Amino acid sequence: MSAIATSPLDALVSHMQESALLATTNNLLDWDQETTMPSGGLEWRARQQALVARMVHERNSSRERGDLIAAVESDGAAMADPETVALVREARRDYGKATKLPASLVEEMARVSSMAKHEWAEARAASDFKRFAPWLAKLVALLRKQADCYGYAAGGEPWDALADLYEPGCTAAYVAGVFDPLRPRLQKLVAELAASKRGPSNAFNDFFVPIERQEALSRFVAERIGFDFNRGRLDRSTHPFCGGTHCNDVRMTTRYNERCVNDALGSTMHESGHAIYEQGLPFARIGTPLGESVSLGIHESQSRMWENQVGRSRAFWAWLAPQLSAVIGADASRFSLDELYGAANIVEPGFIRVEADEATYNLHVMVRFQIERAVIKGDLEVEGIPSVWNRLYKDLLGLDVPDDRRGCLQDIHWSMGAMGYFPTYTLGNLYASQLFEAACAEMPGLVDGFARGEFTQLRAWLNRNIHAHGRRYSPSELVQRVTGKPLSAEPLMRHLEGKLRPLYGL
Amino acid sequence: MSAIATSPLDALVSHMQESALLATTNNLLDWDQETTMPSGGLEWRARQQALVARMVHERNSSRERGDLIAAVESDGAAMADPETVALVREARRDYGKATKLPASLVEEMARVSSMAKHEWAEARAASDFKRFAPWLAKLVALLRKQADCYGYAAGGEPWDALADLYEPGCTAAYVAGVFDPLRPRLQKLVAELAASKRGPSNAFNDFFVPIERQEALSRFVAERIGFDFNRGRLDRSTHPFCGGTHCNDVRMTTRYNERCVNDALGSTMHESGHAIYEQGLPFARIGTPLGESVSLGIHESQSRMWENQVGRSRAFWAWLAPQLSAVIGADASRFSLDELYGAANIVEPGFIRVEADEATYNLHVMVRFQIERAVIKGDLEVEGIPSVWNRLYKDLLGLDVPDDRRGCLQDIHWSMGAMGYFPTYTLGNLYASQLFEAACAEMPGLVDGFARGEFTQLRAWLNRNIHAHGRRYSPSELVQRVTGKPLSAEPLMRHLEGKLRPLYGL
Repeated sequence: MSAIATSPLDALVSHMQESALLATTNNLLDWDQETTMPSGGLEWRARQQALVARMVHERNSSRERGDLIAAVESDGAAMADPETVALVREARRDYGKATKLPASLVEEMARVSSMAKHEWAEARAASDFKRFAPWLAKLVALLRKQADCYGYAAGGEPWDALADLYEPGCTAAYVAGVFDPLRPRLQKLVAELAASKRGPSNAFNDFFVPIERQEALSRFVAERIGFDFNRGRLDRSTHPFCGGTHCNDVRMTTRYNERCVNDALGSTMHESGHAIYEQGLPFARIGTPLGESVSLGIHESQSRMWENQVGRSRAFWAWLAPQLSAVIGADASRFSLDELYGAANIVEPGFIRVEADEATYNLHVMVRFQIERAVIKGDLEVEGIPSVWNRLYKDLLGLDVPDDRRGCLQDIHWSMGAMGYFPTYTLGNLYASQLFEAACAEMPGLVDGFARGEFTQLRAWLNRNIHAHGRRYSPSELVQRVTGKPLSAEPLMRHLEGKLRPLYGL
Repeated sequence: MSAIATSPLDALVSHMQESALLATTNNLLDWDQETTMPSGGLEWRARQQALVARMVHERNSSRERGDLIAAVESDGAAMADPETVALVREARRDYGKATKLPASLVEEMARVSSMAKHEWAEARAASDFKRFAPWLAKLVALLRKQADCYGYAAGGEPWDALADLYEPGCTAAYVAGVFDPLRPRLQKLVAELAASKRGPSNAFNDFFVPIERQEALSRFVAERIGFDFNRGRLDRSTHPFCGGTHCNDVRMTTRYNERCVNDALGSTMHESGHAIYEQGLPFARIGTPLGESVSLGIHESQSRMWENQVGRSRAFWAWLAPQLSAVIGADASRFSLDELYGAANIVEPGFIRVEADEATYNLHVMVRFQIERAVIKGDLEVEGIPSVWNRLYKDLLGLDVPDDRRGCLQDIHWSMGAMGYFPTYTLGNLYASQLFEAACAEMPGLVDGFARGEFTQLRAWLNRNIHAHGRRYSPSELVQRVTGKPLSAEPLMRHLEGKLRPLYGL
């Protein structure tokens, strides 16, 4: 221990960094469990994680943490620095979240969601929502209590308090305000594409490439777009994710399908976007809010931008096509550039959100938002979910949902007690489009550069404008600051219509 | 928190298990760093490990732990159970070790050994002992202080206190008593083998097999001898080791040399022996001394037994030979059983301990024991190590050491502040031979079974007689209990002479 007096700010940062050392240790336990751990390790691992999580929570909700925050808040000299103001604002926010829930509610939520997750898996396998319904009802009751504890702005609704956990400042009214004008335009576009007789060829999506070679392609592309393999890894897992412990050790995973290169390629571009964000966070700020990502929506904007704005662009395929055969060790030369580009942009309404294309995806999210908002508000009983779900799929996507497994039981989120989460996926798509338009405006040859394998410019722009700030700005401030405008549906629609209509001969 | 009153024993076990949850988390951080972590993760990882280690130490040396131990010690009913007596005896021992060193000495040791390890690596690269000598001198001074803090029996010497960390109850006098009669017999055997003109063929040790195929062989053999892949893994690393977090998640590694199948095979058998011990510890006792391995020497006996008594036996090769070509995907049929068996048993004095064969290995260990004992006692100055080292290599192995790199700088142990450690390697060989003789006496067809791929009998015997006890018995008690005799050099000499003399036509 040093005898030198530390400033209140240094003391707060040390206290937060020690939490982060433990929290990131739990991240490694997670990653290892998903990718590496033998099955026999499960029981002890669960106990390890529970203990570390408890230690982190105790520290983050401790009286000491509160006192340290208050000390910085009342340190006039320190608060003259706007970065410190932002750090303390976010520290105060986190401390509030950590202390507002009574321990009994936290424990009850952990207990019920653990069982609900299990019941959901069983119910999904049996395609039987009735089996899951009582558990979801319990969760909804607990989520309402949570929302009351966290609180929300006057004129708002309980859902806002839940969404704020994932997207600071996000409210149902805000989401509805962005989604409402988007919905009819997406429906119209999807209907027009479906009616077209001149869609792109899907042939490349049935081209056999062994998994080892697809993995080589994933590594090749991830590295070229800017993932730093000295500060990260790419492995395999059942569900792709981006984890790891901190900006210098970011671990993403992909899953492979021998019959569809675009599955793994799209997934790798997506996770690389998340990973490049994590690698772009400032190591000097590690453990503090200024070294953390700002929200799930902004995080998703990074993954979606690399997956969609870059990875589904004609320029990207113009770069990849000539070297594709060499990287995958199979002759792909019979596919023209148009066929490759087209195969990455097939639009087709389906039942499953995680398999959805870029255009229909957001309609899936709107269904979930509408339902969870109504459920939390008390306008919809849990028992009524399947019929509303099925009606909305008919209205929005023109589909008759055949069973609950392919309907309202398909996602794990609600069973984990996560409501207020789904809209961040579409917010991510909206942010991605608006940020990418700003990048293109600022760097006129940007997209042309993709065709020459030049991705550094975009990555550096994102590093500078998004990643380096950590949580200094709120998501909406960040968008306003970088694009000069509040979030709007226009850039996403311009992106989708501008790309998909020509591809479908419209 | 439960409101039910817990017994003093339950409270102690809970307290120890919580330490174990954290300590095994650090084990995973270690394993990950050695096998998986990208290089960029180093700085943060070091901080994670330091924090977790500090938390474990604080807990293990806490007043609370001491009070819990005392409460069980004075609980007459609990102490009626001999298992509890053993548990508390070992808990008291660990608590003593954790509390006897002043924090300042622990920190000084960590600081100096961290720098000494770095200086050792540089000195070894430059083959310049003078560069390392001042650091080793500092370490020796600290080790003497450590020994004073730990204490040792009257009539003993400071080295005993250090050795006791690795091999409970081990003293220099005990080691010398076992080593002294062994030394001339080993020297005589090695000299006779060297003089023989009829040694086995070394040809199989220059047979090219790609690393992937050798890995398949390693997995095949590890599984057959009893390593449970549902409760463990086999990966690659620069230096083979056996780590993991607990009996249900044991992680061993091997390194491969394309030109020598026996390198990886021997290494895999060795690490499998360690791993099978770990997997054999009782999960119900996890976190307590009854769920931990008893000593480094006994641990090494398990690795050496599978590596040497099993893996270098004619019966083992009689089983492996007919299927070797299929497993390694290369035609090894031109090697006769005698050639395969012989290639695993080449004896040849060399400078490097870790490359040594079964017969000369122990002479390498004796050099180190003699030197570190004299240094700790004060009979030898650090500066004098190279000349004593070189003289002993001449006397014991008949070799002229060409430089310090291949001489007294070859091992990392001393630079880490580990003195008292080396003899456990030879104790392991001695225990292995004596235990294996007992196993053979109890199960007459044991070795014949190896030729039919039957290894379960030996593994079950070791599980029952060694693994299941954890630290219930001391190493010497365990040997006495299982073999009916105190440790002696005879079984090792019988094993080596009985095998090697015929192989060398003597």
